[in-house]
Amino acid sequence: MVRKIDHVAVAVRNLEEQIRFYETVFGLRCGGVEEIPDQKVRVAVFPVGEVRIELLEPTSADSPVAKFLEKRGEGLHHLAFLVDDLEAALEKAAAAGVELVDKKPRLGEGGKRIAFLHPRSTSGVLTELCER
Amino acid sequence: MVRKIDHVAVAVRNLEEQIRFYETVFGLRCGGVEEIPDQKVRVAVFPVGEVRIELLEPTSADSPVAKFLEKRGEGLHHLAFLVDDLEAALEKAAAAGVELVDKKPRLGEGGKRIAFLHPRSTSGVLTELCER
Repeated sequence: MVRKIDHVAVAVRNLEEQIRFYETVFGLRCGGVEEIPDQKVRVAVFPVGEVRIELLEPTSADSPVAKFLEKRGEGLHHLAFLVDDLEAALEKAAAAGVELVDKKPRLGEGGKRIAFLHPRSTSGVLTELCER
Repeated sequence: MVRKIDHVAVAVRNLEEQIRFYETVFGLRCGGVEEIPDQKVRVAVFPVGEVRIELLEPTSADSPVAKFLEKRGEGLHHLAFLVDDLEAALEKAAAAGVELVDKKPRLGEGGKRIAFLHPRSTSGVLTELCER
C-alpha cells in the first residue's frame, strides 16, 4: 500500500540559515522554496535519492508549525508516505482504529493530495499519506 | 556527500505492537528484529523503497531510547544519511562547527559504521551518518 517515503519534514525557526546548513554540511542542494498559505509555512525542499527533506518555517504565530516549535523546539516534524490510492489508504487506517486528522484528502505542497493521521494513533509520529 | 536517507528511526514502547501496526495499516513488511547491546535497543527494520524505517524499543531503563521516551514520549527519534566516506563527512561537519556525539565511527546495526551529530547543531534533529 505504501510505495515509499515521500518526504521527511523538519520544523525550523530560520529557513535561510538551515538551507545553508543542509547545503554546506550535507552537500545537499535546495530544489526550491514554496509558501503554503493553507498550512502557514514556507517549505524548502531537498531531493535526497528518492525521498525529499522538507524544512518548514512558520509564516504566522498561529501556524501549526509555530505551535510545534513553541512546545517541542526545532526537530523532526512529520513523516510522509506515498500511496497509490489515498482514499483507500484512509479507509484502511480508519478501519484499523487510526484517528484521522483529515477525513478527506486536501491539497498539499506541489499540488499533491494529502491527509494526516493523528500521532496519538501512530506511536507519536505525525504521519502524512500523500498521492501524486 | 550524502547519498540518500539510510533510515528513519522511531522510538516505541512496545515493538511487537508497532510491528503489527506498520504491517496492518501501511502494508509494510518487517525485515527482521535485531538487538543492539551497545545502544540497549531492539530494532525492527522495515524496508520502504530505498530507505528503511527502524522501530527502536529500549531493552534497559538506562538506554538512550528509554530516556528519550521518558522525556518526549514515542515518536520520530533520528534521521540517518548514507555517506561514502564517514571520516571525511565527520571532518567536514566538525569544520562547519557541528558538535559531534561520536568523534570517531562506531559499529551500528547490520555491521555498518556510524556516527551521530548532536541535535543542538542540527536544528534539533538527532542525525546519524553511516557508511556501509
